[in-house]
Amino acid sequence: MPHLLTSILEDRHWDAALISSLPNVRYLTGFTGSNALALALPDRIILFTDPRYTIQSKKEFHGRTVIVKGPLVAGMKRWLGKISTLAFENERILFHTQQAVAAELPKRAKMEGMGPLLEELRMVKSAGEIALIRRAVEINSTAFQAAMRLFREGMTERDLAAEIDYQMHQFGSEKPAFDTLVAFKQHSALPHAHPREAKIEGNGLLLIDMGAFWHGYASDMTRMAHIGTPSQKTKTHYKAVLEALTMAEASVKPGITAKKVDAVARKVLKSYGMEKFFTHSLGHGLGLEIHEPPRIGKKMDTVLCAGMTITIEPGVYMEGHQGVRIEDTILVTEHGSEIMTPTPKEMLLL
Amino acid sequence: MPHLLTSILEDRHWDAALISSLPNVRYLTGFTGSNALALALPDRIILFTDPRYTIQSKKEFHGRTVIVKGPLVAGMKRWLGKISTLAFENERILFHTQQAVAAELPKRAKMEGMGPLLEELRMVKSAGEIALIRRAVEINSTAFQAAMRLFREGMTERDLAAEIDYQMHQFGSEKPAFDTLVAFKQHSALPHAHPREAKIEGNGLLLIDMGAFWHGYASDMTRMAHIGTPSQKTKTHYKAVLEALTMAEASVKPGITAKKVDAVARKVLKSYGMEKFFTHSLGHGLGLEIHEPPRIGKKMDTVLCAGMTITIEPGVYMEGHQGVRIEDTILVTEHGSEIMTPTPKEMLLL
Repeated sequence: MPHLLTSILEDRHWDAALISSLPNVRYLTGFTGSNALALALPDRIILFTDPRYTIQSKKEFHGRTVIVKGPLVAGMKRWLGKISTLAFENERILFHTQQAVAAELPKRAKMEGMGPLLEELRMVKSAGEIALIRRAVEINSTAFQAAMRLFREGMTERDLAAEIDYQMHQFGSEKPAFDTLVAFKQHSALPHAHPREAKIEGNGLLLIDMGAFWHGYASDMTRMAHIGTPSQKTKTHYKAVLEALTMAEASVKPGITAKKVDAVARKVLKSYGMEKFFTHSLGHGLGLEIHEPPRIGKKMDTVLCAGMTITIEPGVYMEGHQGVRIEDTILVTEHGSEIMTPTPKEMLLL
Repeated sequence: MPHLLTSILEDRHWDAALISSLPNVRYLTGFTGSNALALALPDRIILFTDPRYTIQSKKEFHGRTVIVKGPLVAGMKRWLGKISTLAFENERILFHTQQAVAAELPKRAKMEGMGPLLEELRMVKSAGEIALIRRAVEINSTAFQAAMRLFREGMTERDLAAEIDYQMHQFGSEKPAFDTLVAFKQHSALPHAHPREAKIEGNGLLLIDMGAFWHGYASDMTRMAHIGTPSQKTKTHYKAVLEALTMAEASVKPGITAKKVDAVARKVLKSYGMEKFFTHSLGHGLGLEIHEPPRIGKKMDTVLCAGMTITIEPGVYMEGHQGVRIEDTILVTEHGSEIMTPTPKEMLLL
């Protein structure tokens, strides 16, 4: 990666690139601490962090590391003072950091926004990264199965979310990739519902959206369960979303645009008269972050390539009634795609 | 709070204040979603979020809410276009957001950084906030006790961290306030060590640093345990840190500066010849964030006031050998302080 970045610096006539977002710092250096900046120069990357990470940074990054007491930019002065054109992450840097850096540059120096350049480099995963995501997906599915075996009517949404988190830990995940969602009945109509103290009992749909981190890489999965017998209406909602999912997944291959895949799902839902209840994008890339490019949305022209890992997650949400979402993590392969998530897609009857 | 902000707007001749950091948005509006901006006008606060939060935002905030598809700043145009002086969170806003807002303001309008103004308002907690922190602290201590009862030699650091997280959930916490630290032997010398797959067995010190969120408010506690019989040297390290903690806690009262409290702990450690191993600040405020002002550090002139909730956490770290840290959450009261954390401070012998 540093080599690729070196050639980008050269192509764009940048003397250096300042990396300020932690996932991008981690991508370039392997450093996992919570406070860091990286400066990419043509011949090397320099990592800046604080004294809490003196020992850890030595273990994780074998390049030059500068330990800075106080604001990290202060430790960068001697390099910044010689730069004419500095690329920076204009979409992710804090205003404060940008100002501090600008103040240390020579008078006539320029700062050029690089946009989501590193996020775009990160879209296509290496074999090593894919292996980590594969393991995260496996842990996710295994933990789901284990947690659902322990499910008892009368548990609260929070109880079940805690059980899921515990099981992910047990199977090796360092932490959940996001706050686990467990949403029963009407609550499932909120696409980002937090688990409540409410009991899961009686008749109704149960939505579970969970993800695991494994060595920094994320998985993402949503499954639906039903307590009691689902109504005909619920079965139809489920059938529509499942068909949207499988049709969209079948369409994924290198060369297709993100918006075309999104359109496949929307078309299926339209045929059921449910398109208007599908209020978000079809999916998103995932890796070092749970949401990263490419976004699989209505207007996204991104061309899918082999090595991209994305979610496909159509959903329909009827306010006050219920919501249905089904989500897999999938890999774009050379000839099509591989559904990484092994969990059956059928509604789980509890 | 909105009233206080109103008078600040007037005093400083600001037409409006843009709130971009999520904890500050939550503080002002109660909204807990992951994507929001708030605009404080003299007579009201307007909340901006995206369609995922249509239902949730209605439940949490009873003022005007604007649901925006795409970048939130786009939904603000009609208000921004009439502003002459806009205050903004210059230390927390993204460069990107600041630029988008600047582009929507009238030509001669000014943006004025407000620094950590809201964080300073948040330093002194209301009775309601203190009650939430008190509950977070209780959950923290109860979960610690429950998890330590389940401790068995041969568990990994990760196993114990998972158990702690599970117990916090069981006792009602919505999530850990930060990644739970469990660090055995040499690993305890890293102030921010991540739990490893390493087994906790044989003879050595075990550091546990944990926190719970309760209705959005955090607790923070560090305790040390020892497997087998501690050496005389370890006992001395522990004694030094414990004395630094208790002396520093005893010094806390309204009117004292943060740096004076920090100095009390440093002086104790110096008397043991251990000051150079104390490589971080003595403590920090906590509330809606696990780290928030005031920082209790060497150079901090902040005067402590009744209603502040802070941590006191002296530590000594000997690279390659071991680390000792002990930490309580405490409340500054009218006449001194109250140690909120009920867990005994003695080294736990396992």
